[in-house]
Amino acid sequence: MSKGDETKARLVQKTVELIATQGYHGTGLNQITQESGTPMGSLYYHFRGGKDALVAAAMQAGGDVITQALQAAFSETADVPSAIHSLVELLSQQLEASAFTKGCPIATVTLETAAQNDTIQHASQTIYRQWQTQIAQFLVQTGYEESAAPSLALFALIVIEGGLLLSRAERSITPLQQAGEQLIFFLQLNQQKG
Amino acid sequence: MSKGDETKARLVQKTVELIATQGYHGTGLNQITQESGTPMGSLYYHFRGGKDALVAAAMQAGGDVITQALQAAFSETADVPSAIHSLVELLSQQLEASAFTKGCPIATVTLETAAQNDTIQHASQTIYRQWQTQIAQFLVQTGYEESAAPSLALFALIVIEGGLLLSRAERSITPLQQAGEQLIFFLQLNQQKG
Repeated sequence: MSKGDETKARLVQKTVELIATQGYHGTGLNQITQESGTPMGSLYYHFRGGKDALVAAAMQAGGDVITQALQAAFSETADVPSAIHSLVELLSQQLEASAFTKGCPIATVTLETAAQNDTIQHASQTIYRQWQTQIAQFLVQTGYEESAAPSLALFALIVIEGGLLLSRAERSITPLQQAGEQLIFFLQLNQQKG
Repeated sequence: MSKGDETKARLVQKTVELIATQGYHGTGLNQITQESGTPMGSLYYHFRGGKDALVAAAMQAGGDVITQALQAAFSETADVPSAIHSLVELLSQQLEASAFTKGCPIATVTLETAAQNDTIQHASQTIYRQWQTQIAQFLVQTGYEESAAPSLALFALIVIEGGLLLSRAERSITPLQQAGEQLIFFLQLNQQKG
């Protein structure tokens, strides 16, 4: 990794952390450059689009961590309940370890800005669709009908996201865990082996 | 209504609008006072706790609008699918009429700040529990078992909140509408008449 690449990666990593905790409007470029030890000039060198370009890159990087977690959960088992259990467990640990600051890496920024900011909306949509596709593929692999998998996957995503929101509101992993249990029940009822 | 009450109500109403669209960090007290035509002194007179006290009051006011919408939906019908349809319809209209800026009136602020701000977290938790209780009572009235109603109501809330989030990310009412359909299916499967 070149020095420039390292600087860029450091900026993105710091932004991932800050937007997860504080959101878009709560995170200023000054804080990002200070806490990552990077001059403002470097930020604009690597991200000519400024804050939106950097935040979009951070959303993608934060999203990729979840993508990898999904891949790991789905490669360890061909059983939907086990996969959802391990995903919920991972997200619960992340919530507790961060004192409930870290839920979905892109939800806060999405709600704050997606309606008014095309760059953020595009990043957000891309990442959610990526997760939805991953979940749908896993459902198909485990025997769900191909025609039903996309809408079931969207529903699974909606349930996990809603569960993360309520868990942050309650500062308790209970809502997320209950959401996971109900989702498993729902998916089992919808299982129609091809 | 006294002049003071009117001023207070105007401040709260403007804050409801601004936090729904921009969130907590994106909404400054200057913008609130300017757009509501209120001097800063009046804001601090009515809200000695400053921004957090005002935002908590706005969350409660925005939450009450949904509480009333739930009451309306639940008083018009004793049929769970019809009630969920009319709620989803109302929220879909609100999303479209606001160009996807207005989803849940408290979700954005919750994600931005609940982990670090006790005043906001308390307001958020109170409102979500209020909605959950309302939904649970409706489920019991329509024949669901009292022991199952709270967790089914929490799940319903999670699904609607997740649906609103994905609809804002997609700038489309489709995720919310699909969430509503799946939720109806789920609740019907869980119906055990007492």
